[in-house]
Amino acid sequence: MTVSRKIAAEFLGTAMLLAVVVGSGIMGQRLAGGNDALALLGNTIATGAGLIVLIHMFGPVSGAHFNPAVTLVVVMRRGIAPGAAAAYVVAQTAGALSGVWLAHAMFAEPLIQISAKLRDGWPQGLSECIATFGLIGTILSTQRSRPEFTPVAVGLYITAAYWFTASTSFANPAVTLARSLSDTFAGIAPSSVPLFIAAQIAGAVLALAVFAWLLEEEPIDA
Amino acid sequence: MTVSRKIAAEFLGTAMLLAVVVGSGIMGQRLAGGNDALALLGNTIATGAGLIVLIHMFGPVSGAHFNPAVTLVVVMRRGIAPGAAAAYVVAQTAGALSGVWLAHAMFAEPLIQISAKLRDGWPQGLSECIATFGLIGTILSTQRSRPEFTPVAVGLYITAAYWFTASTSFANPAVTLARSLSDTFAGIAPSSVPLFIAAQIAGAVLALAVFAWLLEEEPIDA
Amino acid sequence: MTVSRKIAAEFLGTAMLLAVVVGSGIMGQRLAGGNDALALLGNTIATGAGLIVLIHMFGPVSGAHFNPAVTLVVVMRRGIAPGAAAAYVVAQTAGALSGVWLAHAMFAEPLIQISAKLRDGWPQGLSECIATFGLIGTILSTQRSRPEFTPVAVGLYITAAYWFTASTSFANPAVTLARSLSDTFAGIAPSSVPLFIAAQIAGAVLALAVFAWLLEEEPIDA
Amino acid sequence: MTVSRKIAAEFLGTAMLLAVVVGSGIMGQRLAGGNDALALLGNTIATGAGLIVLIHMFGPVSGAHFNPAVTLVVVMRRGIAPGAAAAYVVAQTAGALSGVWLAHAMFAEPLIQISAKLRDGWPQGLSECIATFGLIGTILSTQRSRPEFTPVAVGLYITAAYWFTASTSFANPAVTLARSLSDTFAGIAPSSVPLFIAAQIAGAVLALAVFAWLLEEEPIDA
Repeated sequence: MTVSRKIAAEFLGTAMLLAVVVGSGIMGQRLAGGNDALALLGNTIATGAGLIVLIHMFGPVSGAHFNPAVTLVVVMRRGIAPGAAAAYVVAQTAGALSGVWLAHAMFAEPLIQISAKLRDGWPQGLSECIATFGLIGTILSTQRSRPEFTPVAVGLYITAAYWFTASTSFANPAVTLARSLSDTFAGIAPSSVPLFIAAQIAGAVLALAVFAWLLEEEPIDA
Repeated sequence: MTVSRKIAAEFLGTAMLLAVVVGSGIMGQRLAGGNDALALLGNTIATGAGLIVLIHMFGPVSGAHFNPAVTLVVVMRRGIAPGAAAAYVVAQTAGALSGVWLAHAMFAEPLIQISAKLRDGWPQGLSECIATFGLIGTILSTQRSRPEFTPVAVGLYITAAYWFTASTSFANPAVTLARSLSDTFAGIAPSSVPLFIAAQIAGAVLALAVFAWLLEEEPIDA
Repeated sequence: MTVSRKIAAEFLGTAMLLAVVVGSGIMGQRLAGGNDALALLGNTIATGAGLIVLIHMFGPVSGAHFNPAVTLVVVMRRGIAPGAAAAYVVAQTAGALSGVWLAHAMFAEPLIQISAKLRDGWPQGLSECIATFGLIGTILSTQRSRPEFTPVAVGLYITAAYWFTASTSFANPAVTLARSLSDTFAGIAPSSVPLFIAAQIAGAVLALAVFAWLLEEEPIDA
Repeated sequence: MTVSRKIAAEFLGTAMLLAVVVGSGIMGQRLAGGNDALALLGNTIATGAGLIVLIHMFGPVSGAHFNPAVTLVVVMRRGIAPGAAAAYVVAQTAGALSGVWLAHAMFAEPLIQISAKLRDGWPQGLSECIATFGLIGTILSTQRSRPEFTPVAVGLYITAAYWFTASTSFANPAVTLARSLSDTFAGIAPSSVPLFIAAQIAGAVLALAVFAWLLEEEPIDA
């Protein structure tokens, strides 16, 4: 029963996250009259605020990963068994797809879409690597020194990363895959997905190495 | 006396909430020069910030429901007697109407208006169902694991929901009814009100079922 | 010595507050290309964030009133002696004027200006009455139930009030007087000042009465 | 080992800070369609949110100075040895340069650039003096009364200072130097750098004097 609740929390939380990301992107683009800075502002504020809430909602149940890159890091630190991690990733992916379709339904868009928005080239890959490096670094460092602040830190980090990376910071393989099925503001062409996911995994592993060294054996003062 | 204070807190808090929602919508629309993304940004920031403050102000007195859907859920969880709940709903509705008129007065608008803004169709209903589901889920889950964060969580949730739902997330039957009496940015045509309220109640009941299962018997770590 | 520190804190804090309000108004208007919603957004974000910081900075020294209406309420609640209150108001007023001139200097504006921006009529007066009522209510209620949150609550309240009142919420007699000496975005014509100050005092006294009744003898749960 | 971790934290944190400042400036300018208020809004939100996160991430390791003006003040208060401080400043400067180049790489800009954006004249110098005065005052006062809030206070302060100073508040010599190597939204012409750095140091020393007097021997109530 406890396990089924954790899986449900990952599914539901990731679904709501994608509904926020894709839905607010559609709203932003529809209202902004062609100004993408305004569309991204609305998208950013909704995503940052939404993430803070969702991590608070589901964190006590499942840890609120919502992200295979996070689950990968937790496995590597032996914080979750590999089998449970696999179930988490399946739930996250299914949740992400459901969230995209939910956003499409709310905005009266065709449910099934394929994004035509190419996000190619090594600067995009570098952006995703840095974006995920920072996300994992945020989680590892705040979990160590001030864990009750981690949900807010993650929301604020993504708020910043939507703007400081050239890719608008997907930083999440399940999110990337699901957004390839939305031909809206937040979409990504399927052909760009492998680069993004590879870069995200590289960034996550790099962050694990760097922050394990940086934080290990360091006295933490509250 | 204590009961009269609770009723007064629900009345006053809901009135101030509607003054914020409707007033900032008027201000946004007047200043934004036809760009609805900008108008919604101002509306969003004011509503999110205002909600956080209002819940802190009146929460210790009445619980700061400001919302018949919230009161319904509290009744179903036996957190308030049915008679008191009915008084709460009356106070919320009267407060919401007063708040709309106060906003009209501050902005030198005709006091009595009827909105002509149709918000029809099942995607709008779905949006309200999801919006209210998320609101109730936010309250139930944070009340369980971190109650001192609930006011901020509700403000951030509505900040996100103004953008990720196609209806801009009314998520509140008293607010919906009152906004039908404002032919401004935040208005809703009276003919669209029944769909919204039905969807809100459905979303609230759904959230109660889902989160009761998800959070029950789950160990909560502070 | 302690008294001189308190006076200095009121002077310096109010000066910095006005530098933020007037300076960010100038910046907003210069950059926004004629779109007042954008100018007000920048003005709002700077003022809200700045207030939260300034109250944290000077609160432990002087209480961080920065506002004769707040000092009036504190006197009426016997939280400060009348003589000290008079010194506070002088320091606030001198600080407010200094802050306006500092903003003008930073933006290479003529130091001495008189605003030509009329803000007349009873809807503006009502706006200021409500704005100050809400500000004092925010302070009184959060001081009672959660005092460590008051600085954030005040910053968020003003963030909302810039948008939900037709007057953009001055809510402060010293700020009002000083802004009459700036012919920029945040200015107010001297002829509109008496209405604003009268309405602010009325709102403050009304809030004192309402919240004294609402909060008195009410059990507060942390 | 501990020292190398501190140096690494200052390097990495300052690099990420500059990636945020310069990267979000590029993103803002590219998307804003010529409206600098919108570009600055994106730049502001990213920088403020990013700073809060970065100070939480690296604070427990190195104190998260990221700024030679901060390190100078800490040395003058004997909070760090002069030799360690020198190493901090080297790490901050190297990190700042790396962060600028990282932003350029993510956005497919030429790595090596020289800014052509003149920021001259005494109002700009005054702006930087006030900006740094406020930043140091924020740190000294919140460290005294509520140290766990300092990271949020610094982020909110910079959020405000981007708008209320005419220079958009660099307030950091290493940041200033590095931004001279970016001919983008956040750039500063090399010829304007000395004025900025001199003003920043003056503001920092002034803040140290004023706040040492203001906060000394003052009872602090939590």
